[in-house]
Amino acid sequence: MIKEELNKKKEEAELGFGTKNYNESVRFLNRDGTVNVKRKDSKNHIGFDLYHWLLGITWKQFIALVFISYVGVNTLFALVYFSIGADKFGGLELYSGSEKFSQLFFFSAQTLTTVGYGHIFPNSVSTSSVSAIESMLGLMGFALVTGLLYGRFSKPKADIQYSDKAVIAPFRDHVGFMFRIANKKQNELIEIECQIGFAYNDPVTKKRAFHFLELERNRINFLPLSWTIVHPIDDKSPIYGLTEENFHLGDAEFVILVKAINDTYFQTVYSRMSYKADEIEWNAKFIPVPQTPHKNGSISININDLHEYKKL
Amino acid sequence: MIKEELNKKKEEAELGFGTKNYNESVRFLNRDGTVNVKRKDSKNHIGFDLYHWLLGITWKQFIALVFISYVGVNTLFALVYFSIGADKFGGLELYSGSEKFSQLFFFSAQTLTTVGYGHIFPNSVSTSSVSAIESMLGLMGFALVTGLLYGRFSKPKADIQYSDKAVIAPFRDHVGFMFRIANKKQNELIEIECQIGFAYNDPVTKKRAFHFLELERNRINFLPLSWTIVHPIDDKSPIYGLTEENFHLGDAEFVILVKAINDTYFQTVYSRMSYKADEIEWNAKFIPVPQTPHKNGSISININDLHEYKKL
Amino acid sequence: MIKEELNKKKEEAELGFGTKNYNESVRFLNRDGTVNVKRKDSKNHIGFDLYHWLLGITWKQFIALVFISYVGVNTLFALVYFSIGADKFGGLELYSGSEKFSQLFFFSAQTLTTVGYGHIFPNSVSTSSVSAIESMLGLMGFALVTGLLYGRFSKPKADIQYSDKAVIAPFRDHVGFMFRIANKKQNELIEIECQIGFAYNDPVTKKRAFHFLELERNRINFLPLSWTIVHPIDDKSPIYGLTEENFHLGDAEFVILVKAINDTYFQTVYSRMSYKADEIEWNAKFIPVPQTPHKNGSISININDLHEYKKL
Amino acid sequence: MIKEELNKKKEEAELGFGTKNYNESVRFLNRDGTVNVKRKDSKNHIGFDLYHWLLGITWKQFIALVFISYVGVNTLFALVYFSIGADKFGGLELYSGSEKFSQLFFFSAQTLTTVGYGHIFPNSVSTSSVSAIESMLGLMGFALVTGLLYGRFSKPKADIQYSDKAVIAPFRDHVGFMFRIANKKQNELIEIECQIGFAYNDPVTKKRAFHFLELERNRINFLPLSWTIVHPIDDKSPIYGLTEENFHLGDAEFVILVKAINDTYFQTVYSRMSYKADEIEWNAKFIPVPQTPHKNGSISININDLHEYKKL
Repeated sequence: MIKEELNKKKEEAELGFGTKNYNESVRFLNRDGTVNVKRKDSKNHIGFDLYHWLLGITWKQFIALVFISYVGVNTLFALVYFSIGADKFGGLELYSGSEKFSQLFFFSAQTLTTVGYGHIFPNSVSTSSVSAIESMLGLMGFALVTGLLYGRFSKPKADIQYSDKAVIAPFRDHVGFMFRIANKKQNELIEIECQIGFAYNDPVTKKRAFHFLELERNRINFLPLSWTIVHPIDDKSPIYGLTEENFHLGDAEFVILVKAINDTYFQTVYSRMSYKADEIEWNAKFIPVPQTPHKNGSISININDLHEYKKL
Repeated sequence: MIKEELNKKKEEAELGFGTKNYNESVRFLNRDGTVNVKRKDSKNHIGFDLYHWLLGITWKQFIALVFISYVGVNTLFALVYFSIGADKFGGLELYSGSEKFSQLFFFSAQTLTTVGYGHIFPNSVSTSSVSAIESMLGLMGFALVTGLLYGRFSKPKADIQYSDKAVIAPFRDHVGFMFRIANKKQNELIEIECQIGFAYNDPVTKKRAFHFLELERNRINFLPLSWTIVHPIDDKSPIYGLTEENFHLGDAEFVILVKAINDTYFQTVYSRMSYKADEIEWNAKFIPVPQTPHKNGSISININDLHEYKKL
Repeated sequence: MIKEELNKKKEEAELGFGTKNYNESVRFLNRDGTVNVKRKDSKNHIGFDLYHWLLGITWKQFIALVFISYVGVNTLFALVYFSIGADKFGGLELYSGSEKFSQLFFFSAQTLTTVGYGHIFPNSVSTSSVSAIESMLGLMGFALVTGLLYGRFSKPKADIQYSDKAVIAPFRDHVGFMFRIANKKQNELIEIECQIGFAYNDPVTKKRAFHFLELERNRINFLPLSWTIVHPIDDKSPIYGLTEENFHLGDAEFVILVKAINDTYFQTVYSRMSYKADEIEWNAKFIPVPQTPHKNGSISININDLHEYKKL
Repeated sequence: MIKEELNKKKEEAELGFGTKNYNESVRFLNRDGTVNVKRKDSKNHIGFDLYHWLLGITWKQFIALVFISYVGVNTLFALVYFSIGADKFGGLELYSGSEKFSQLFFFSAQTLTTVGYGHIFPNSVSTSSVSAIESMLGLMGFALVTGLLYGRFSKPKADIQYSDKAVIAPFRDHVGFMFRIANKKQNELIEIECQIGFAYNDPVTKKRAFHFLELERNRINFLPLSWTIVHPIDDKSPIYGLTEENFHLGDAEFVILVKAINDTYFQTVYSRMSYKADEIEWNAKFIPVPQTPHKNGSISININDLHEYKKL
């Protein structure tokens, strides 16, 4: 059998996903590049990392969180001030009881943001002490929030557009596994590298095998247009001889890691993606992305053309 | 024919610019290193990235934008305050109607910047609430603006001066493609590396071919003076046998990528540049950059001397 | 003798720990990865680096330090204001002597944090000058504190869980030195690399010898589950032929360096660890970490299972 | 002659310092690692980079500059306010003419730092507009200053202590060029690499030749103690056969580049240094740095012992 031979001659690779053969279909990487593994801890909820969580939530969630915290902290301080006594503040004499509380809430906001209008002001040691602490906490709290805000805003990303489907297309004398990528952003990527791992439930060894796939070219210098990444399926390839049915039965997954330099801050960025068996078109070919030259010597492309292929 | 032979024996390189042979002359990299390709998207204006845009605009544009936003936001909040009612503020009693609006504009500015003099102050729940939100937005907005300001200010750059022209000069037993670079800044660059790609419309294959050019030396440790980067045009070179006329007809372009470590923050920085056929002098030779030693053991150069060459 | 042969055929490595053979047992790396060497200087306490110290102290210490500094600086400025004269301030007329001091303390806090309510204000050149300086120092001081706060908060870490024990387990035809690692955090690590150095007091040469150990695999692409790092103890290994007793007598230490890319900011992070002789189980085998597949295609593990082994 | 032979068989290296043979003695790198080359520009003072200058000046200069700018900017705004008219401010009625100016100076300081007490406040459109601009400029200016302050504070450094002298000491069957380094700071350096270039005015070719020197070991994993870097002067070495007199006549310089990872932020840092002929001891040998083991398993060294050598 061809697969037995394959298992003999191909050295297995290790992507870090283990070799367990699941009965159910699993997906190691989601299409958005997130890793589909949950790590737990018997003692506490594992590895909850506030910083990464605050960087990872959506903008809507982040803004809501900031707003709720702002109202919450001010309510808390208003309660403290109110319990110490509204008479320990100058400027509150004319307000009624419930008005006093709302004025103390706004005094707290004016202290936390250090705007400090001063029409209300603490005039005892106790209230002055609390507001001295509040203004210090305000400075530090807002520094954290604005640091996170800027951190979220400036977070480096490899905004890679992957073609919706990968194809098995003719390549040189054989066929090749191919997909295309393009840069979705205006800034440029340089020194782009690609690695492909192939995960497959081997029907013979009953283990999940991983292999790195050799690429026709695994690195380019610039990515202004699109790049077709090709794994030639020749007799040295671990997927040589496998059919579309094998891919489905073996729960095949192509795990992709793209590395590049973002030229804004010259940071190294990574992008991950995977193709499962049902995202691969057999006997199809990508249609070249039209490149339009302009009078001024520039060229333009439409990156949605990246997904276009035709059945052969 | 010599070019046919070349096409057979030279492996083509891939710089990420595709292999399409345009009828019109194109330039992949502009002389300032920007990539001459526009990426579009059929749905929306592609990859508009506010952060990179704000880092990329000129200082004049950036300052104008900040100023206009500042006036705009304050006008907006002044309108909100005015529509709630100027009588909901303390300190505005003596002002006339239009004066009230301008005073509320300045109250807004004092709140946004958290300067909060307090001669005008909100004395109702509605106006206090809006100003509590405004001071919070002010803190966060200014944090973004100043983050961007500092980000622009501290952005790492490889400020490389390239010689105006490249030359084809005698080198060892043959000739070589040469250009010179120097560091335009006072801080030092270390571990400087250079790669040259050559793009050429091949008259035989009718395709745009790309080749990497081997360099006499592709890395130096320091760049205190100037560095002459040399591609020897011997029989292993893909441009061996090409003439000045071939360069013009084939729309030749030398695409250059320089990588270095900036020694202020030890960041890796990149610089890009390209030479087209009309920026190359044939049978010319660079004049060595005069190096003046000083009594204290130091040496000085004038980096404008980098451009000097003489015809042979 | 087998150890004499070993010394002849194995090239010694250099980890930077020297070759001195101590009579007492030493540990180069603590289990938490800190280096167990103190560097001194005959003149002053060496290399005290305020910045790294402030990043390294615990959160409790950091907060206490900030609070104490805040109180201390305000007390200092209050003393300066008080010695200049409380009559040089507006708004203090009604307060008694000691109340004046506490009010000046709070005025200082309001100036330092730039909250500036203004019910107390400097009304002479001397007090205005000092408060102008204080508000400037306040801005800069809080910037440093909040920079440090954010620096501490966003500090990249490789939060690697190492198995409590390393084991000497059967591996292929021989045995192998093995330990396991997993990622303790929710964010992912990519391109994980491992190096192992082996330190041993050689009874023949009477020197401390260091050797790098070859690994079955020294790099994986992802670490979503666990990774068992294996040094095969075959006849090419510098620890081939050594027994458990040799390990104890020779004060053996396995020094581990793990390098990875943290995928939040794509930063390279490092983790260090060491195993001493009494942290190694002979003739034991790790129990595979149970991987639970879920209906949605995801997999979960419990990283506490990393430590489980059984004696053979 | 031996030197003629050397020139034939040794390939010249390129450190980026050119090959000009100066009649006067030059030093490429100062002992503190700064590059001893001045780059000029015929048009303007070349490459003045405010950011790098502000990071490079001493703390004393930086603080003086901030203080002078603070006083200067406030004086400027005080002049603007005074020329618009002190009657356009509330709270100044009781002050005399010159007192009005000093009060406006302090009002400016309170606006720039956003402390805004409010006992003086702008009450016309003109003065309110200027102070609205001032508070905005204040926020942005202080953000730049505090960014620089933190940038200076957190700047990564490889604080390497080099031995005062390099020695030519016996090494294996020949001699070797050796010097020692240690880490001057408490934080650790990992993956330390070293490169040595040798610059020499060749008496035969009359050119300044550069050679890279092969090291016994060019990389270590940790640097907790000291590291003796050794270039073996065997018959493959470009300095084989040269004498102490040759070094002085040829204006020899050993140019050193050390690269390491600082383990606080896992940043790559570089350190540069050079040894000239009169900083090299012939027939001397370093005295091993005493390592003191402690009861708790730790080891301590005194890095001043790094400089100790004895003549043979």
